[in-house]
Amino acid sequence: MKAELIAVGSELLTPYRMDTNSLFLTDRLNRLGIEVIRKVVVGDDRSRLRETFREAMGRADLVIAIGGLGPTQDDVTREAAAEELGRPLKHDENVLRQIQERFRRFGREMAPVNLRQAMVPEGAEALPNANGTAPGLWLETKANIIVLLPGPPPELEPMFTEQVEPRLARRARGIELQTRELRATGMPESEVEQRIAPLYTQYPDIQTTVLASPGEIQIHLRAWSRDRTAAAQQLEELVEQLRLALGENLFTIRGEPLEEVVAVLLNAHHATIAVAESCTGGLVAQRLTSIPGSSSYMLGGIVCYSNELKSAWVDVPAELIEAKGAVSREVTVALAEGVRRRSTATLGLAVTGIAGPGGGTPEKPTGTVHVALADEAATRERSARFPGDRERIRLQASQFALDMVRRYFLFGPKGRG
Amino acid sequence: MKAELIAVGSELLTPYRMDTNSLFLTDRLNRLGIEVIRKVVVGDDRSRLRETFREAMGRADLVIAIGGLGPTQDDVTREAAAEELGRPLKHDENVLRQIQERFRRFGREMAPVNLRQAMVPEGAEALPNANGTAPGLWLETKANIIVLLPGPPPELEPMFTEQVEPRLARRARGIELQTRELRATGMPESEVEQRIAPLYTQYPDIQTTVLASPGEIQIHLRAWSRDRTAAAQQLEELVEQLRLALGENLFTIRGEPLEEVVAVLLNAHHATIAVAESCTGGLVAQRLTSIPGSSSYMLGGIVCYSNELKSAWVDVPAELIEAKGAVSREVTVALAEGVRRRSTATLGLAVTGIAGPGGGTPEKPTGTVHVALADEAATRERSARFPGDRERIRLQASQFALDMVRRYFLFGPKGRG
Repeated sequence: MKAELIAVGSELLTPYRMDTNSLFLTDRLNRLGIEVIRKVVVGDDRSRLRETFREAMGRADLVIAIGGLGPTQDDVTREAAAEELGRPLKHDENVLRQIQERFRRFGREMAPVNLRQAMVPEGAEALPNANGTAPGLWLETKANIIVLLPGPPPELEPMFTEQVEPRLARRARGIELQTRELRATGMPESEVEQRIAPLYTQYPDIQTTVLASPGEIQIHLRAWSRDRTAAAQQLEELVEQLRLALGENLFTIRGEPLEEVVAVLLNAHHATIAVAESCTGGLVAQRLTSIPGSSSYMLGGIVCYSNELKSAWVDVPAELIEAKGAVSREVTVALAEGVRRRSTATLGLAVTGIAGPGGGTPEKPTGTVHVALADEAATRERSARFPGDRERIRLQASQFALDMVRRYFLFGPKGRG
Repeated sequence: MKAELIAVGSELLTPYRMDTNSLFLTDRLNRLGIEVIRKVVVGDDRSRLRETFREAMGRADLVIAIGGLGPTQDDVTREAAAEELGRPLKHDENVLRQIQERFRRFGREMAPVNLRQAMVPEGAEALPNANGTAPGLWLETKANIIVLLPGPPPELEPMFTEQVEPRLARRARGIELQTRELRATGMPESEVEQRIAPLYTQYPDIQTTVLASPGEIQIHLRAWSRDRTAAAQQLEELVEQLRLALGENLFTIRGEPLEEVVAVLLNAHHATIAVAESCTGGLVAQRLTSIPGSSSYMLGGIVCYSNELKSAWVDVPAELIEAKGAVSREVTVALAEGVRRRSTATLGLAVTGIAGPGGGTPEKPTGTVHVALADEAATRERSARFPGDRERIRLQASQFALDMVRRYFLFGPKGRG
């Protein structure tokens, strides 16, 4: 089965927005053995959209259009599909009730514009939207399946998973995609590539993609096969070789983010953590608390931007800041120990640095970052200098800090951490 | 002039890679008054690529294809364009010399595969590539301009700027693009739409796009015109009407994020701020410190996840937490007052809430959020209930908190804030 994806929205033809839903959909379709042969972005223009539907239906078995199902004048996907298929739109009482119900639940009155969302093309099935007002639509013709999905990812993703995927799975033909995702940190992309390219090129049936983001290298492995067991075995073999090649820099073979790895380690060791951060401004705490149930290991965090608060909140001696500077090995160690003591957490983690654009000096250039981790017995610290702009430096610094916690558990309190 | 962009490459049809060159090109084309009406991503497949060229040339004056100009078997863009246009490929000595010269400069021998890159369709102009081996191509027919550009941004961007832009500028017809971006918060998308649709539909020459993200509605206005002054005047007129329609919910007419508006207000009032947050876990502090120079107004933040730390760090009485619950009006007020007192900031801002997925109760369902803002004279508080998953609730809560600071300055300490 071949698919074309149509992302609808004039905003996606500006320099400001990209269609990212197609990445989610491609992943899910690939897993069902469905190949995506083309992606199109088109504006909220009824005749261009009709033309796009027509072309896509001529080439692909499955056509999925994303967006343009909202209540406003711009939203014309429903109308364009109905016209192109010659299926008149009809008012659907059932859909209307669901929309009204949703408004009621949030204590609001349904606006008259939302009436448009209760229009359904003849012969189509409305797909209920648990997270928004726009229902999706599923239409079949002799040659094609056409699916219309709402644009916001929190609406699109559950609707696809709960309602579209099971319908497509019934039609899929036994080819299956298996994937693995490895992630490493603490090593530049070129070095990762040099170590692993001689390995993965030995596996022509596995599609390997290496992606770099600030402080992280992702390695995606994909294998399509009718023979599930053979493909899984090849994947396991390659994963094992990559694991040996990357060593301690590899932090997952299951694709989860570093904060999740750290959360699992903290929970497994019945440890708690508290954070003191300056240059990352709350980013480390935010990542640690992004995981559901984080209150079991995360006690709290302190963003001590001013020097006075470093002293008042985390007991860093003013003289130490005066002598060594707020961004220094010594102050970072004092922050880690201070936040640990003040919180009674098992571990105190601290980050200081110069995120820029201003504030750098020849001795401490922009991008300089210190991290420290204190337990009851000792405090370790590390330093680095990261390239890039303010946002990239903050991201890399938060990764560096979280990775210090991971390495602590990996090597033990006395390890190289 | 209307353009279609074609990004070529099978890797762009996986879940891991996106075409980002089209954002750069759209920005540059728009500035020349050229509208992008469609973007297509297609794999390295000669017949699909020919079909894509054919469709694009039927609709757009200008067709730009990106990528697929490399030396390998997969790279078929040159061949597909030549075949579709009926222009046989010819060996170009001049282009070959440039490629050989480049290899010589890096002390390497040109590989035989690179010979393909010296093939140029009849009547086409080769565009030299200062940063790679693949030359670009410029082709004209009676109806179309077709441009082929290499995929890597460090090759594409200078080639476009130095060689394509001047050629297009000569043909551009003096049409210029002007844009405005308005942002509002505190109002659902459907209500914004109901208030503003009757206004912007009166301006058919202005393209209006309304975008919703968690806690924020963006309104993008774009006007192409030969008459710069008249278009600017129309835009100002519409902006003024939208401003009246949206009132205090509109927080910018210049498109900057809410944290930047808050930063400007804090600086303008010589005010400083400190934050205590639970459910947002550092997100409010992180947003306030994402702005360069934030140390002038941001003193610090406390992420008090555990109840003990709410008492130990921000002096919230344990009995109050016991009596009212950690997520309550009263505790949030105490946090705002406590963090203000402990930091000596002008303003203390606090957020508590239930971000989920667990932790909700019938009285305090998931999504319940309290914010409070304390100054030396008084503390105001507000509550809301937000829909969505953990991440969306946290985003909306951070927006709600930052907006409280904005409204405080808007209406003054005694205002409705």
